[in-house]
Amino acid sequence: MTPGCSIPGPIEVADDVLYANAHPSMSHVSAEFVPVLGDCIRMTREVLLTTTGQPFLIAGSGTLGWDQVASNLVEPGEDVLVLNTGYFGDSFADCLQTYGAKVDQITAEVGGVVSQADIESALKTKKYKIVTFTHVDTSTGVLSDAKSIAETVKKVSPETLTALDGVCSVASEEIRMDDWGIDVVLTASQKGLGTPPGLSILVASEKAIKVFENRKIPPNSYYASWKKWLPIMQAYEKGSPAYFATPPVNLIYAYHASLTRITKGSPSLGERLQLHREASKKIKAAARELGLKQVPLDENFAANGMSAFYFPDGVTAPDVLPRLFKKDVIVAAGLHKAMKEKYFRIGHMGISVVDEQRGDIDKVIASMKEAIGQAIESKKV
Amino acid sequence: MTPGCSIPGPIEVADDVLYANAHPSMSHVSAEFVPVLGDCIRMTREVLLTTTGQPFLIAGSGTLGWDQVASNLVEPGEDVLVLNTGYFGDSFADCLQTYGAKVDQITAEVGGVVSQADIESALKTKKYKIVTFTHVDTSTGVLSDAKSIAETVKKVSPETLTALDGVCSVASEEIRMDDWGIDVVLTASQKGLGTPPGLSILVASEKAIKVFENRKIPPNSYYASWKKWLPIMQAYEKGSPAYFATPPVNLIYAYHASLTRITKGSPSLGERLQLHREASKKIKAAARELGLKQVPLDENFAANGMSAFYFPDGVTAPDVLPRLFKKDVIVAAGLHKAMKEKYFRIGHMGISVVDEQRGDIDKVIASMKEAIGQAIESKKV
Repeated sequence: MTPGCSIPGPIEVADDVLYANAHPSMSHVSAEFVPVLGDCIRMTREVLLTTTGQPFLIAGSGTLGWDQVASNLVEPGEDVLVLNTGYFGDSFADCLQTYGAKVDQITAEVGGVVSQADIESALKTKKYKIVTFTHVDTSTGVLSDAKSIAETVKKVSPETLTALDGVCSVASEEIRMDDWGIDVVLTASQKGLGTPPGLSILVASEKAIKVFENRKIPPNSYYASWKKWLPIMQAYEKGSPAYFATPPVNLIYAYHASLTRITKGSPSLGERLQLHREASKKIKAAARELGLKQVPLDENFAANGMSAFYFPDGVTAPDVLPRLFKKDVIVAAGLHKAMKEKYFRIGHMGISVVDEQRGDIDKVIASMKEAIGQAIESKKV
Repeated sequence: MTPGCSIPGPIEVADDVLYANAHPSMSHVSAEFVPVLGDCIRMTREVLLTTTGQPFLIAGSGTLGWDQVASNLVEPGEDVLVLNTGYFGDSFADCLQTYGAKVDQITAEVGGVVSQADIESALKTKKYKIVTFTHVDTSTGVLSDAKSIAETVKKVSPETLTALDGVCSVASEEIRMDDWGIDVVLTASQKGLGTPPGLSILVASEKAIKVFENRKIPPNSYYASWKKWLPIMQAYEKGSPAYFATPPVNLIYAYHASLTRITKGSPSLGERLQLHREASKKIKAAARELGLKQVPLDENFAANGMSAFYFPDGVTAPDVLPRLFKKDVIVAAGLHKAMKEKYFRIGHMGISVVDEQRGDIDKVIASMKEAIGQAIESKKV
């Protein structure tokens, strides 16, 4: 286990994925590379259980997915509803406003989710172009109920689009894009998708693409513009190169290696999600035994790919994190502005969960027990 | 020599750079990684011969540099002058307009550069916020005279900023950012900088940063916003982590390896540029002997890191490129819309030039001679 394994992204990456990232230089328009990017487009659909969604794979951080939504699906002055469950909801709202959206937010209490009733009443007051939510807010470990949110939107305001920020959920939480009727899933390479960071991954439904095509004014971003990227993605999928900006060739090879594991390897995607649920249960049970309180208020709305726990009373990050570090277990400090100093976060996504032989989860649990125990002990002295 | 070596980017990458790209996952806020990104910021300055410029290293393609200029240094309705020497001038203008700039262009004839006299008269008619130019337009191999452009701008309109698009020139052409008074150099990782693609690299002068800080309205991009990135770059350089978007950790390790070669290795940066000039002369002389006409009209304004040659009369890309491919020499087809089918492009940047023992340049020349000879012969039959 290398350090870095137990933060909620970048997660540890399988060796074959790392090797692929060291692929010798290859022209982005070569006959060898074109089908690799084409396959990545197709396999991205498989991960999200969509047959008709349009993937966009662009060099960038996950953040770039917000720019794509804000500049392609919203026009200046249009109303957007942000369901805010933490740090990343704040930022998504900020991004939407940058491109001219009028943003209303429903902000959940810390550790909570936005209720369907609140979503329903907001949708009744105003015609929203799009409702956005963070599937797993990496700052809190809160898991929003994507299926119910999409259902509520469709029931109350069928024209409104639904965008799921899945940076911390794709390939570690269940997402049935077509069945649930999600219009946008945006994510990044470095979490459940098990690839080094640097790739912005987004899939738009046919309905979202239609909304984009019917814009009154052109997209108000250049680099994030689907007007530029849609023909590129379509060309590569059909097997021809096209040029707007040089793709991150090596990272595409790495993503291809990881997607091949996820969509064609063993365990299957369904089994992977089950393994994430089991690992999560194990870690959360161990924390409960230690008397640690979860940040998510309701265990039904807690992520399966990460956990966030408050420190015991009187204990702080410097009491715990260095003790874990000494055991080669690196966890993340708090991020939510309301209580940054009071909690920590553990990632359990990808190979550390799926490759059970590694024993990562047991090691994390044992180390957490020791470190928390020692920290509490040290405070008594 | 692996295929891909002889296109004008992505260029072939040294083995230690590839190994660095396969670095095990590392937290972007870890004590190990923070100084690596800090070093990259410092070494980027060294490559551009600036002591006060502010680097921005962001996951993205080179294209993202245009968004940075357009959304941070120009406000909607302001006038910008684009010196257009090919495909990339068109695109930079398109990007500037997307963010609301009023763009005037001086378009050079195909293969030519914009004259200083034309720049001077344009600057006298209007107050431009910024003058942009493509240092080497990858579509034509034309090298603009960066030093003279900056001098003219300073002489006629000292408040106007000068932005150099150096995607195809940084580390293969001389750029003295401070001495010449260039306000922005934007580039990407996959050409002269010898790193896999996926990193947008930009350096802004103190003057540019002041212009940015005195904006009347906030930047109108989110992902490309210096308001977000400036504190991040400053923090990492000082040795503390900060978060806006996850950096492309592996690629930063790779960039670090390549920058270390360029700024601390042998040959020195100055010697590197000299080697690029010599390799370029050799290739251009060989082409001249074959009767090939260069796309750049004046050899004083031809790039040192790439070449663009017209095919002989009656010969087309399918006659030449597959013949080169069989010899493991991959060159690029035409890109400029005016004569896409009529010419080809050879990249000669980075290790294929600097590591002379590889013999890449001689191989390219020998293969070109054979392929062009055979192509001409085949037309006679």
